[in-house]
Amino acid sequence: MLRVYLSGEIHTDWRERITKGAEGLDVTFTGPVTDHAASDDCGVAILGAEDDKFWHDRKGAQLNAIRTRKGIEEADVVVVRFGDQYKQWNAAFDAGYAAALGKSLVILHGPDHAHALKEVDAAALAVASEPEQVVQILRYVLTGTLPG
Amino acid sequence: MLRVYLSGEIHTDWRERITKGAEGLDVTFTGPVTDHAASDDCGVAILGAEDDKFWHDRKGAQLNAIRTRKGIEEADVVVVRFGDQYKQWNAAFDAGYAAALGKSLVILHGPDHAHALKEVDAAALAVASEPEQVVQILRYVLTGTLPG
Amino acid sequence: MLRVYLSGEIHTDWRERITKGAEGLDVTFTGPVTDHAASDDCGVAILGAEDDKFWHDRKGAQLNAIRTRKGIEEADVVVVRFGDQYKQWNAAFDAGYAAALGKSLVILHGPDHAHALKEVDAAALAVASEPEQVVQILRYVLTGTLPG
Amino acid sequence: MLRVYLSGEIHTDWRERITKGAEGLDVTFTGPVTDHAASDDCGVAILGAEDDKFWHDRKGAQLNAIRTRKGIEEADVVVVRFGDQYKQWNAAFDAGYAAALGKSLVILHGPDHAHALKEVDAAALAVASEPEQVVQILRYVLTGTLPG
Amino acid sequence: MLRVYLSGEIHTDWRERITKGAEGLDVTFTGPVTDHAASDDCGVAILGAEDDKFWHDRKGAQLNAIRTRKGIEEADVVVVRFGDQYKQWNAAFDAGYAAALGKSLVILHGPDHAHALKEVDAAALAVASEPEQVVQILRYVLTGTLPG
Amino acid sequence: MLRVYLSGEIHTDWRERITKGAEGLDVTFTGPVTDHAASDDCGVAILGAEDDKFWHDRKGAQLNAIRTRKGIEEADVVVVRFGDQYKQWNAAFDAGYAAALGKSLVILHGPDHAHALKEVDAAALAVASEPEQVVQILRYVLTGTLPG
Amino acid sequence: MLRVYLSGEIHTDWRERITKGAEGLDVTFTGPVTDHAASDDCGVAILGAEDDKFWHDRKGAQLNAIRTRKGIEEADVVVVRFGDQYKQWNAAFDAGYAAALGKSLVILHGPDHAHALKEVDAAALAVASEPEQVVQILRYVLTGTLPG
Amino acid sequence: MLRVYLSGEIHTDWRERITKGAEGLDVTFTGPVTDHAASDDCGVAILGAEDDKFWHDRKGAQLNAIRTRKGIEEADVVVVRFGDQYKQWNAAFDAGYAAALGKSLVILHGPDHAHALKEVDAAALAVASEPEQVVQILRYVLTGTLPG
Repeated sequence: MLRVYLSGEIHTDWRERITKGAEGLDVTFTGPVTDHAASDDCGVAILGAEDDKFWHDRKGAQLNAIRTRKGIEEADVVVVRFGDQYKQWNAAFDAGYAAALGKSLVILHGPDHAHALKEVDAAALAVASEPEQVVQILRYVLTGTLPG
Repeated sequence: MLRVYLSGEIHTDWRERITKGAEGLDVTFTGPVTDHAASDDCGVAILGAEDDKFWHDRKGAQLNAIRTRKGIEEADVVVVRFGDQYKQWNAAFDAGYAAALGKSLVILHGPDHAHALKEVDAAALAVASEPEQVVQILRYVLTGTLPG
Repeated sequence: MLRVYLSGEIHTDWRERITKGAEGLDVTFTGPVTDHAASDDCGVAILGAEDDKFWHDRKGAQLNAIRTRKGIEEADVVVVRFGDQYKQWNAAFDAGYAAALGKSLVILHGPDHAHALKEVDAAALAVASEPEQVVQILRYVLTGTLPG
Repeated sequence: MLRVYLSGEIHTDWRERITKGAEGLDVTFTGPVTDHAASDDCGVAILGAEDDKFWHDRKGAQLNAIRTRKGIEEADVVVVRFGDQYKQWNAAFDAGYAAALGKSLVILHGPDHAHALKEVDAAALAVASEPEQVVQILRYVLTGTLPG
Repeated sequence: MLRVYLSGEIHTDWRERITKGAEGLDVTFTGPVTDHAASDDCGVAILGAEDDKFWHDRKGAQLNAIRTRKGIEEADVVVVRFGDQYKQWNAAFDAGYAAALGKSLVILHGPDHAHALKEVDAAALAVASEPEQVVQILRYVLTGTLPG
Repeated sequence: MLRVYLSGEIHTDWRERITKGAEGLDVTFTGPVTDHAASDDCGVAILGAEDDKFWHDRKGAQLNAIRTRKGIEEADVVVVRFGDQYKQWNAAFDAGYAAALGKSLVILHGPDHAHALKEVDAAALAVASEPEQVVQILRYVLTGTLPG
Repeated sequence: MLRVYLSGEIHTDWRERITKGAEGLDVTFTGPVTDHAASDDCGVAILGAEDDKFWHDRKGAQLNAIRTRKGIEEADVVVVRFGDQYKQWNAAFDAGYAAALGKSLVILHGPDHAHALKEVDAAALAVASEPEQVVQILRYVLTGTLPG
Repeated sequence: MLRVYLSGEIHTDWRERITKGAEGLDVTFTGPVTDHAASDDCGVAILGAEDDKFWHDRKGAQLNAIRTRKGIEEADVVVVRFGDQYKQWNAAFDAGYAAALGKSLVILHGPDHAHALKEVDAAALAVASEPEQVVQILRYVLTGTLPG
């Protein structure tokens, strides 16, 4: 059984394409809370409002860390997706965190980001551009079967 | 003695302001190669040219990793600077790497980046906006002396 | 599945409020023996009486350590409750022990203790004042659902 | 050479009695910043004021953690002193932190605290009541010489 | 669930007394091969005879190490029994091995051995003289119930 | 339950002889993808063709590493088979990798290779020449039963 | 530079023969307190008398552990000497402790003890019978020079 | 300062070319005993002759392991050279051992070995064919200076 953590971009359907594509394989997927509003406001919603946006964000980011750290630490494979928009520093942070723990990293991004992500890619065991390639990797790793 | 690794932005003088400011303190500083061209091309310059830019970058990023991993792994404090430009995913990657190793993280960035860096800041023991604050932190940690 | 260790105060019903509130969530709870008399006397009851109260206490504390260390080491989240009475040094000890192991710490205490607990709180990912907030944290971490 | 971290009470001269008594031995001592005001206010003094006392304390406690974690992690022996006053939860936290790292713990307290500290004492290799006993321990460990 | 490794003496019925006494508790027991002849000769029986008794013993001891290391490394509690006869250096070796791994140690021996075992006992969380006490410890650790 | 990773030679039936022989024992076996062509080409088949054979090989070897590292890291026993042909440096690499992780190593090779493999054998708990001996080892380790 | 811990027997001159023989080599030696009386009574001499011999021994053994654990944990090579007399369970305990930490073990004993020490020897990289052989090992490891 | 371990081939002058080329750089080099005869016979020369070549080899390989493990474990960079002759399984074993410890690996071999070494190369941060390239890597990593 392979435990896979899906980190990064939350505005496209890449997670669904992977989990759907991997149906039938012996894989369990985990990942962050992908509801953007809930993720941003969880801290103050549970632990009380903050006047200062900095501490509003801090409370939320630390609650989310309970989930993301467990997910990464228990994963065999950490897939990190970089989309076309936003800074996505949390995705790169997760990649570094996973790399230091010796996890098998798979980085998923379009060719435009290749140079900017070269240090991240260099720590990975695979660099893919499409979610379907991640599914093929998981199938091969588990069953030895190649596409086509 | 405090070993401090200075990660991130290479286009402003923040490293000099810290190392100069910390003169007289019992600190040793390390950091990446900050010559942009050398850092980009080191791999092919030493190990042979590549037709494909992707592998050109890979060779360089992996050589640089010999230096950066040693620097981070031996550091007591890892300072990560996010500047105003570029993606800076390697900086966020370093922060995640250092966090997973349990290093004391200090993040240095302007207020505009606060929300985008909230997960990175949440893993840090200090968030500063000016290099001089980092010097004050190092002085306080080593000597118990506060500014002013 | 989330493994949660509930450390600290044994004289109020905070553990029951959390375990009851978390019914239906994929959580397992562990914690110390909360029968005060049994906890104090277990060592001599099993291993033989001691004239000196110091060794009476030692024998008991070491037996209890078999349970508490396993609980903390296997936990994903360690919740430490500080009540209004007593020294509660064992609670702070557990918090430090959990922090050094990299566990996700949640500290639970009333506002009066905030200054005295600042070092403990600073190692935590959440500081709550009511057990129901801990339930909300667990629900959010597992399901992404916020209260209200 | 023995590296000794002196944690806990900051209102009596116990650190001086130990460091003075250990003169001539191959020991280096480290410890927290013992200037109470500086320790409380370091965060806001360097990183900016906070309206909320909770975050005022948080900023300071996290700066102090840079120093205390390094001190404990590099120590061979961690001595934790519990005085007659205050909650001293940070001392118990340090003891738990050191215990989880497998450090040799020496606990220093008067007989009145014995029962309340039984879990902390049970994790220690020595429990002393006077700083001079700590000096004798260090001398014995380094040279095999007993007092008298 | 508690995983308990039973190390040491193989010529009395102490393992049976513990496993029988612990029936109904959520414990799994492991231990070395207790068939003395098989344990001594397993190496040469499987891997071929040796002229030299030293290598005959080596082959067997290394095969047995596959089992004993796994048992100790996966255990929560390691019970080490010292009987009245023989050198039993392998028992003391197992105790040291378990101690270095941070396992909860319970040492079981008669009062005559107390002084000779003082370093081993000093690394343990409990020192018992009868197998029934070990059962009581396991019951207390799992259920909080004391005997009588 | 014993988790056994079978590393090395892929051109004879030694894996089948072990897994078949171990039927009825509480063992789970893992190993690399043994389809030579799939193993060589998996990288380019999934992630895109490479002009340079060096990077063709790199992509494949890194995908295979996702599987082999997980297999070795989760194993209790790592069996490494050296056949009569080829360099088999990946087998020796796996042995070194497993040794550094403290795994129980069993090396399987004919007598001709003994001198060349002396450093590898010296890190092992058993050196066998026939797959059936490995089955006997597994049976003995799990049940204490010797052959014959 | 090689750090060598000399554990075990304290009634013959084997430590002197090794340290004298190794003069001129880049080695530092550490070991336990070898003054038998001081070692037995250190606990009560510093921390106060005990009526019960068991706790008298406990206090001493734990003080000695401060020294022995540091010595073993910082050593590259741990030499454990078993003499002709006494139970020497502390020596076997040290050997197990060192083995679990992955130290290079050298066991030193006469041929009569070979069978009883087979599990200890099986964890070692060398088994010698004379202190001079240990000197030769240290010289070879450091300089590549063989005797004669 | 960079600690570099030079593993592998002992029949050409590659180590000399690297150590000579690196003069003036802040590097310390370690490596195995490269006197082939001494390396093969050290075990029996010190610990006594063996009739069986297998144990003759075992004794030697284990003595050599004292030196090689220390060298690899303390290194920042492990360079592994594969020459044109011999099986060189010990070199691949060292590479695997270093990889599992997270060392920065540099592999040095001619193009003919590329396919057979693909799993080893895939674990490395650089693959070079000439010793002078290793010198250039060390100079770049330490000083940021590129050749030419």
